[in-house]
Amino acid sequence: MFVEIITIGDELLIGQVVDTNSAWMGKELNNVGFEVIRVTSVRDRENEILEAVDAAMKRVDIVLMTGGLGPTKDDITKYTLCKYFGTELVFSDMVFENIKRILANRITMNPLNKAQAMVPRDCTVINNRVGTASVSWFEKNSKVLVSMPGVPQEMKTNMSEEIIPRLCSRYKMGAIVHKTYTVKNYPESVLAITLTDWENQLPECIKLAYLPKSGIIRLRLTGRGNNEEEIKQIVLKEGAKLYDILGDNVLDENDSPLEEIVGSMLKERNLTLSTAESCTGGNIAARITSVPGCSVYFKGSVVAYSNEVKKGLLNVSEDTLNRFGAVSEEVVKEMLNGAMNSLKTDCAVAVSGIAGPDGGTAEKPVGTVWIAAAYGKTILTQKQEVDFGRELNVERATNNALLLLQKVLF
Amino acid sequence: MFVEIITIGDELLIGQVVDTNSAWMGKELNNVGFEVIRVTSVRDRENEILEAVDAAMKRVDIVLMTGGLGPTKDDITKYTLCKYFGTELVFSDMVFENIKRILANRITMNPLNKAQAMVPRDCTVINNRVGTASVSWFEKNSKVLVSMPGVPQEMKTNMSEEIIPRLCSRYKMGAIVHKTYTVKNYPESVLAITLTDWENQLPECIKLAYLPKSGIIRLRLTGRGNNEEEIKQIVLKEGAKLYDILGDNVLDENDSPLEEIVGSMLKERNLTLSTAESCTGGNIAARITSVPGCSVYFKGSVVAYSNEVKKGLLNVSEDTLNRFGAVSEEVVKEMLNGAMNSLKTDCAVAVSGIAGPDGGTAEKPVGTVWIAAAYGKTILTQKQEVDFGRELNVERATNNALLLLQKVLF
Repeated sequence: MFVEIITIGDELLIGQVVDTNSAWMGKELNNVGFEVIRVTSVRDRENEILEAVDAAMKRVDIVLMTGGLGPTKDDITKYTLCKYFGTELVFSDMVFENIKRILANRITMNPLNKAQAMVPRDCTVINNRVGTASVSWFEKNSKVLVSMPGVPQEMKTNMSEEIIPRLCSRYKMGAIVHKTYTVKNYPESVLAITLTDWENQLPECIKLAYLPKSGIIRLRLTGRGNNEEEIKQIVLKEGAKLYDILGDNVLDENDSPLEEIVGSMLKERNLTLSTAESCTGGNIAARITSVPGCSVYFKGSVVAYSNEVKKGLLNVSEDTLNRFGAVSEEVVKEMLNGAMNSLKTDCAVAVSGIAGPDGGTAEKPVGTVWIAAAYGKTILTQKQEVDFGRELNVERATNNALLLLQKVLF
Repeated sequence: MFVEIITIGDELLIGQVVDTNSAWMGKELNNVGFEVIRVTSVRDRENEILEAVDAAMKRVDIVLMTGGLGPTKDDITKYTLCKYFGTELVFSDMVFENIKRILANRITMNPLNKAQAMVPRDCTVINNRVGTASVSWFEKNSKVLVSMPGVPQEMKTNMSEEIIPRLCSRYKMGAIVHKTYTVKNYPESVLAITLTDWENQLPECIKLAYLPKSGIIRLRLTGRGNNEEEIKQIVLKEGAKLYDILGDNVLDENDSPLEEIVGSMLKERNLTLSTAESCTGGNIAARITSVPGCSVYFKGSVVAYSNEVKKGLLNVSEDTLNRFGAVSEEVVKEMLNGAMNSLKTDCAVAVSGIAGPDGGTAEKPVGTVWIAAAYGKTILTQKQEVDFGRELNVERATNNALLLLQKVLF
């Protein structure tokens, strides 16, 4: 079953909002066997929406639309869909009750809220449990078009609780199995060469994709067929061969983010972690705490942006700072020990660098970052170089810190 | 001049990678007067790429493509473009020299790297300063199609340094002026009602959009015309009226993120800041340090995920923790004072809450977050309620903390 997603909104085309909806939808739909073959983003213009809807309805079986359902003037999706399906808006008591419930404790009902209770007549209207804009489910020539709100949390709730279950009960699909292996220490082309023979012997029913990202490469195997269990076994068998070829460089096989991989290692071995961060400014801690249940192993961090904080809370010596500078192997090692002592943890990571755009010198140009990771008395350090811009310098340092922690724990 | 962006890659449709490229491109193109009217994401399939390219070349003046130029088997963009333009791949010494330079200190050249030096014959080839895949610039029937790498950093560098300057010198455009006003304290529909009269009197050449996001709403005014200075004056004149209607609720008029708004306030008044974070786990510090030059006012943070760290580094009393619990107004106030004392700052924000999915109780359900902000002895506190899921709970708490800091500084 082929799906096209249409995301609507000037803000997407002008780049003020990143469309994260379609990636989330693609992932969830794929998990249950629907294949998204195209995403189209268009502006809030009637003719452009109509053209996109019409082309999509010819191309695929299911069209999922997000956005343009808000209470304001620039939201025209439901009027446009009425035109496309030759229907009109009618007042829905059910939707109006829901809007009152949603707004109950927040604001007084106004005419714009009431206008949100107007819904297309010839469609199934689905109440939105977490917002005021309702979901419209149209059917035409045995094809389905669903229009839903674009606010990510509302879209997710409506997709998970209503739209995906209804799609699953309406269609029967073939089996699809994904398995993603995370590989470290390989540049993409070297990995491709290393895996040539393996890749060439992959059965027809399996497709391979390389997904490189800041220091690691994810290899995604996708198997398709009629029998899910059979496809799963084939995928796992081919995946297992990767360990023979790449050994310990295969970090993970569940598409887990790095913070989850190190989190599991710490949890299994009953170890605790802290971080001491200068240029990463809390990003490592934020990544680590994005994992539910991390409080079992994560105690906390000192973000030591200034030298006074490095001295005061992490016990970095004035002398070391003066002799080697804040961005040095010596200082990150002292930060590391400071974190383990102050926060009383078994392991720690520490980072100090020049994120840019300013603050570089001839000897230590922007992009220079020192990273250290410790498990008890075992300390590993690493120097990151080359300037990729402030944001990416910090992201790379965060990933490298997590990779170094993984290494010291291994 | 109308532009369509085509992003290529199975990983986008299956949702393993969020397409951040097109938003960035849309923003940069808009700034120089090109209008992106559609974004299309397709899979790595020849017929789907061909169909999308052909439709786009009919629809718009300029087609910009990203992705599918890597060294591996699933990358088919350049072969497909040769087919579309009726040309073939030839070896480019210039590109080969660039590839050698890029790979110099990292890996040995292999056949896949060499294959990247094969480029379409009938196009202008532009070297990629920061990667191995080159840029191809085609022209046909006075329309332009540019194919570039999909790795965000490479795309950005090539767009900024080569593609946008070349587009600007090839086309002449009308003027376009954007101005975005950030408004706090208004739900979207209430704001829309409040602004009805103002909105109705806006001149034809101005378009308005509402962009709500976690507690704030951005109002974007877009003016178009022939004379840039004239359009700018009209936009500014209409924007100025917002202050008369909304007063202090207009936070900013430069589309600055909250962290930049509070950063400017601190900098102007020569004040210093620290954060004490429990459930936000470093996210507030990460947001604050995303602003270049923040070291002038930001000293650091204590991420106190565990109670021991709250006591040890922030001096929260055992007694307060026992009597009120870690998620309480009393504890965030002590965290706040602890941060200002330990990190010696004029201002601080502190957060403690239950991000979920576990850890809630009947009295303090998941989603309960206490937030406090201080400037010297003035302390403001706020209780955030309702569970939107771990990620969004943390994001909302981060935004609310920055808003509370803005308020205490105002």
